[in-house]
Order: sequence, then C-alpha cells, then structure tokens
Amino acid sequence: MKTKHPSVYRGAILHFHSDPAIDGESAVEYHEDGILIVDEGKIVAMGDAEPMLAELDHPANLVDYSGHLIIPGLIDSHIHFPQYEVIASYGEQLMDWLNQYTFPAESAFKDPRHALEIAELFLDELLRNGTTTAMVYASVHKSAVEAFFEVSKARNTRMLCGKVMMDRNAPAELCDTPESSYEDSKALIEKWHNNGRQQYVITPRFAITSTPEQLALAGKLHEEYPDTAIQTHISENQDEIAFVKQLYPAAQDYLDVYDQYGLVNQRSALGHGIHLSDRELQRIAESGAHIAFCPTSNLFLGSGLLDLKRLDDFGVRYSVATDVGGGTSFSMLRTLSEAYKICQLNHYKLDPLRSLYLATLGNARCLGLDDRIGSFKTGNEADFVVINHGATPLTKRKHSSANSLMEQLFNLITLGDDRAIYRTYIAGKLAYKAAEQADKE
Amino acid sequence: MKTKHPSVYRGAILHFHSDPAIDGESAVEYHEDGILIVDEGKIVAMGDAEPMLAELDHPANLVDYSGHLIIPGLIDSHIHFPQYEVIASYGEQLMDWLNQYTFPAESAFKDPRHALEIAELFLDELLRNGTTTAMVYASVHKSAVEAFFEVSKARNTRMLCGKVMMDRNAPAELCDTPESSYEDSKALIEKWHNNGRQQYVITPRFAITSTPEQLALAGKLHEEYPDTAIQTHISENQDEIAFVKQLYPAAQDYLDVYDQYGLVNQRSALGHGIHLSDRELQRIAESGAHIAFCPTSNLFLGSGLLDLKRLDDFGVRYSVATDVGGGTSFSMLRTLSEAYKICQLNHYKLDPLRSLYLATLGNARCLGLDDRIGSFKTGNEADFVVINHGATPLTKRKHSSANSLMEQLFNLITLGDDRAIYRTYIAGKLAYKAAEQADKE
Repeated sequence: MKTKHPSVYRGAILHFHSDPAIDGESAVEYHEDGILIVDEGKIVAMGDAEPMLAELDHPANLVDYSGHLIIPGLIDSHIHFPQYEVIASYGEQLMDWLNQYTFPAESAFKDPRHALEIAELFLDELLRNGTTTAMVYASVHKSAVEAFFEVSKARNTRMLCGKVMMDRNAPAELCDTPESSYEDSKALIEKWHNNGRQQYVITPRFAITSTPEQLALAGKLHEEYPDTAIQTHISENQDEIAFVKQLYPAAQDYLDVYDQYGLVNQRSALGHGIHLSDRELQRIAESGAHIAFCPTSNLFLGSGLLDLKRLDDFGVRYSVATDVGGGTSFSMLRTLSEAYKICQLNHYKLDPLRSLYLATLGNARCLGLDDRIGSFKTGNEADFVVINHGATPLTKRKHSSANSLMEQLFNLITLGDDRAIYRTYIAGKLAYKAAEQADKE
Repeated sequence: MKTKHPSVYRGAILHFHSDPAIDGESAVEYHEDGILIVDEGKIVAMGDAEPMLAELDHPANLVDYSGHLIIPGLIDSHIHFPQYEVIASYGEQLMDWLNQYTFPAESAFKDPRHALEIAELFLDELLRNGTTTAMVYASVHKSAVEAFFEVSKARNTRMLCGKVMMDRNAPAELCDTPESSYEDSKALIEKWHNNGRQQYVITPRFAITSTPEQLALAGKLHEEYPDTAIQTHISENQDEIAFVKQLYPAAQDYLDVYDQYGLVNQRSALGHGIHLSDRELQRIAESGAHIAFCPTSNLFLGSGLLDLKRLDDFGVRYSVATDVGGGTSFSMLRTLSEAYKICQLNHYKLDPLRSLYLATLGNARCLGLDDRIGSFKTGNEADFVVINHGATPLTKRKHSSANSLMEQLFNLITLGDDRAIYRTYIAGKLAYKAAEQADKE
C-alpha cells in the first residue's frame, strides 16, 4: 500500500456498492471497527481496522473516531440557494408561495454581494448537515451563479449549479429572454463546468416560466454540452399542472413539454413528479431521467404524497432532496425521516439501509457522479461524514440499546438532525466540526 | 401589588385569553418588552415592563430574559411514558407495531425499578422540550403508575396519568381483568388524584383490548369519580376499525362502543379520531369530548391525515399531542410543524398563533385545566418556558429578519426543536436550563 501522506480514520464504516433493495446484503459494506485511508483527497482503501493497521507502513496520521459511524458525504439532489431565507414561509401552496415569497427573495440576488453572503451561509449550512454535494438552483442572475461557484470552489466542495432560465410568468426584473438565458448559461458553462469540482446544470425553472423558445434553446445547449446535467420541476401541484396544460395545449402531457425540446434524458433531474400519469412514468423510465423526491417540501407546500412503490413498479429512478426553501430542513436525515412517513401513508416500506443508500450512492448515480462520490470506492473523492449517535439524551439512550445496524440507522434517520453530524470532510480535509457539548447530559 | 418574595421575569411575553381563530387579536396578549411576576409558584401579574417595574415596591429578584420569548409551558395531551424507548421502531402500522414493539416494551414495566428509571428519563425529556404538563398513558401495571406519580410529584409537575386497562387481545402478562383493573384504578385514584399536582385519568387502552365488562367498569369508575379525566384511542387505523366492528357487532360505530359505557363526555380525550363518520363527529361535538391530534404519530404509523377543517365544521374540540412512542418527537414545536403539514395536505391553514394557542391554553381547556395552567392569568400556576430564537445559525438568521410576531412564531414552529427551549420553569422554579453553546456560531 503505497501512499504519500495518508490519513487513517478509524470508526464504524458503512457504504454501499449498489442498491440494497435490489442486491440485498451484498450491496452493503460495513466494518464495525474499520479504517478509511485517504491520501491527496482521495479514498485509498477501507476495511477492518486490525489487519489493515498491521499492514500499514507508517500510520502517521491516525484519527480515532471509534464509537462513531463514518459514511460517505450526503448528497442533496434538489435545492435552491437563493431560498436560504425563504425557508419556513407561511401559508401558501406552490404558485402563491412562488409569487408571495420566492420571487421577491430571488430578486435580491441581483446584488452579487448579497449572493456571496448567502452562498457562504448556504454552504455553511450544508456542511453542518453533512451534505457535501448538492444540485443547486441559483436565481436568474448570472452573477449569482458566479458567486455560488466562487464560494464553492474556495471550499473545494463538489457542487452542481445553474442559472435559472425564466422568461415569463414572473416579475419583470426576474425575467431573462430566450437568447440572454442561452448566452449567459453558455458563458457560465465555459467558465465553470468542470472547473475544479464545480459542474454546470442547465436550469429551466419549469414549463410555466419558460416560453417554448427558451425551452428549445435549453435543449440546444444540452446538445452542445451533453455532459452537463439538466434540472427542472414537474407535476408538483394540481394548479401548476392545469396551467402548463393551458400554456402548452399541443403537448400530450407535462413531461412531453420537456421531452419535445430534448430535455428528458439520463442527465435530467425532474423535481417532484408527484402527479405523473402512467405514460409519463413509462417514458421517464425509458429515458433514464430521474425524479427528485422532496419529502419535507411536498408536505410543507401540501403538494402531495409521492408514491415510490409506483415509481419502483415502473422502474423509474429517484433521488432524495431537501428542496429548501420549499423544504423545511437542510438535514438529509430529517428529509429521510419524512420520506419514510410519506411511504408509510402509501403503505410502502422505506428501510434505513435503502434510505442511506439513496442519500449517498443512489443520489450520486442519479447525478451521474458515482465514479467520483457517493461511496468509498478506491479512487473516489474523500467526502465523508462522521456521525455522532449520542448527540441528544434520547438518541444516546436509543443507540445504546440498538440491537442491529438497521436499528442504529433507523434511530439516526428518525431522531437525528444536524446534531448527529460530528465532522464533515471535503476531499480529505476537515470542513466542519460540531461544537463540543458544554455539559454532560 | 403585594407579594412576599416575587420573582420578576423580563422578556417578550405571549399568551392567549381565548382561541385566536374565534376571537382574533383580542385572544392574544403580547408584550414585546414585558414582565411576568411570580410569587409562591403562582402568576401574580404580567404586562409592559417599564410602567410595571416603576410601580413595583422592591423588584428583589429580577431575571432578565430580554431578547427571549416567554410563553406558558407547553402541554402534551396524549403520550405513553412506557414507550420512551419504543420511539423510532421500524416498519409497521398500528396493530403490528403494538404487537411487535409496544407490548414487549410495556412488559418490562412490571419491574418498578425500570418504571422509575424510565419515568425520570421521560420527565427529563418533557422538560427539555418545554412540556410542563402531559396526559400520560402508563402501562397495565399499577406500580408503574405509582412510579410515574412519585417522580412527577418530586418535581412538582402537573401531570395526568392512568393505569392502562386491558383484558384481552394482548400478551397474557399484560392483561388485567375487569375487576382488577377497576380495583387498581380506584386505589390509584384514592391515592393520587389531586395529590399535589397529580391527577388521575381513567385509561381503557382501546375497544380492542377491553371486554365490554371492562369498559362498563371504566364507565362506573368515572361515575364514581366524575372529576377524573378519561383517555382512550379511536379510529386511528382501518384494520383497527374493522376489528372493533367484529368485536362489538351491536354497536352502531366505534364511538358508540365507548358511548354506551358512559365514556364519552367533556372529560374524554379520544386519541387520533382520523377516520370518524359524520355521526360520530356530531356526537363528539355534542358530548364535549375532544380529539387528541397526534401529527408525527399519524404520519409515522401511516395512519392518515386528520382533517381539522372537518372537525372545525362539526364544532369538535381538539388538542395536539406527540403520542410518543408512535410519535417521533417529544417536541411540541416539531409536532406543530407536522400538524401544519397535514393541514396543508388537506388544504387548510393552521396559523402559528392558533398553533401556539392549541399547545398551551387550547390543550389546557381540553384537559379541563384552564383555571390552573395554559395561560398567564393571575393566580394560575407559574409553569412557563423561555424561548431561544437563535439556537441554530439558521433560526438566528431567520429570527433577525422576521417582520412580525407571526413570522417569528412560524419560524419557531417550523424550524425549532428542543434547542429552542432555553429555560423551563415549574410552578415558578427553574426546572431545566439549556447548556450554553460552546462556540459562537
């Protein structure tokens, strides 16, 4: 094992090789007393601690997280950075919520200083929740995307972001034009896509706020840069769906609006997708696109209960996301807890191994990044999180009586929040450290 | 203003005189810079700080909580203390969840030492969540109720608790008999009802686990002690409802089972009530009984979405409760957040003032205790909570930009948890103090 300046992290270590719902136990790799070896920001090796430590030439930098669980960094597949302060806005469902809270808040991102300030806060919040990669909607402003990427690049986080394309049904100061949105997006791709760990996402907000011309140019852009991802929203809310039907009378359904402009393929992240028809699901499955499931947002905005069983039956891929500011928490743990609840209402079980798979490797696959992040595969980028099971008196007690890894993980998902995140590492470097508790509870 | 050794608490102070959904602004009393005067465990006065401080003879003990919000102690109207460790049990809906997790856990409460240990942890957890009164199910064991009341009495908390009456459809070691349940309950009433701040609740678990003979004796008991409350479960889950129909074929519906034994009146707390018929709702409204709404539990067990609009239309009273261990949090704030989400799915708005009313005076009214707790009315017992709006970076930021009391409260409900509880006072004495934060975030 030849490495230059390896760092060795000892603790319980868990990651996934594949989807445990498909491959069962063989999908899961767990070392109760394990080590993770990292060098130059990459995963070098992982395995059982004792034999591997004996084999190491010079375990120069051994960091002992015994008693803690180490997992790959959490991934959030759908979140809006200019909505950092929109979170917890009272009383409306999607369309009114956009007009009343979101658009006014996004207008402020015309000012690049504001965008920089919020980008810093936003990334702080992601890291303290153990989220190391997110697919992010910016505002309509090119400079806001610049601000976001600058802040992310300085932190060396792997982030995906795009300028919102939006040329109608929004306040005038938030509207671009088909041409300007194309040009701005193109310039941002040229400058930022694969610049360090930053990646660009072509981002038409949704069918309601884009003219056919704009969607056509979004499709053209993806044709020109086929390794960029695409993100948009679909079938979140009944009023939205009715409005789309009115705006695109020739389309056979909501999905078809995007499809006819080349925006539905394996790089496409379709936010929500709660009320899709059988035809739409069949076509999504066939295209390889995925649906970004946003549990806390779907409950908070009263959008509805996404039926994961139906998606599984159709073979549709899905990721899990917070959708802040429609979502109510930056924590992927709390997001998974509400995902479980939605599944319970739909009489479907989301087991904790599957949940954690979704928030790590599953999301990495949906974003086309599983060759770089989402697991501890050798050569992957060393984004990881150290979990504190005992951050509150109740989680401590529950953890001490847990009889299996399943129980430990289900406690973590059901009762955990940002306090469960003890350390967050970005490419092998410590990027967040929880405050030590002042008292001994 | 004559008091012996008054304590004076300064801060923003909020409480309710009545239901803001009915009486609007006149229901709400808010002093942005207020004081609360407490003496001998009782509320003496409250109002604007400056004029009242000037008037005070000798403000001997002034505690400055400026920048914090002081509200009446939160009330939880439905919770199971032997399920402290059942919280976050994976994968089942009501009937299987009872058999697989709950009944085994409750069996351990045969041992009074275990009951004492958990009662202490349980009350610790309530207080750190700002809950100062709860209506509590114990286990079937008389000694577990004794343990609970002993621990509560030592802390001087106002708690309501009862021995579960359960004589069938449960493991043999958890079954009593109609006679033993009557005798044990009666002895507990004689010893504990109105013993200090403790109150007894007649507690037939639900129709499935009680024979007609047992329900008849529960009704008889309430006739003998009409100032005790009654608590049971109703219409939480479709399988449960079908089973009740089978067990009580002569009853016209689920409610009628309880009604025919004199268990439905203004002292009755009916847990859940998600799937009630119009007739049942009408009869509940007429009886003055109330439904205990348990949002996190109803989602976690997949029971369904209680329609508060329908309850309001029928004039049915309701309280709000955690229902731990079916519920996933001891926090009434998180409970109110999920209540909001359920209302959103039902296209009904639960505004933050109404929410906080429900968790304080509203719940006190449902429990028949609004002459003692739930508001800062002069002479009430001084159970109160001091709120920290800035417990996390996000809540701090959101609080600093809030433009109204409504926004502050909605932030608190949507983003808050146990960390928002800065201090909890029981009858004027400090009973919980949050750990100071180790770092300055």
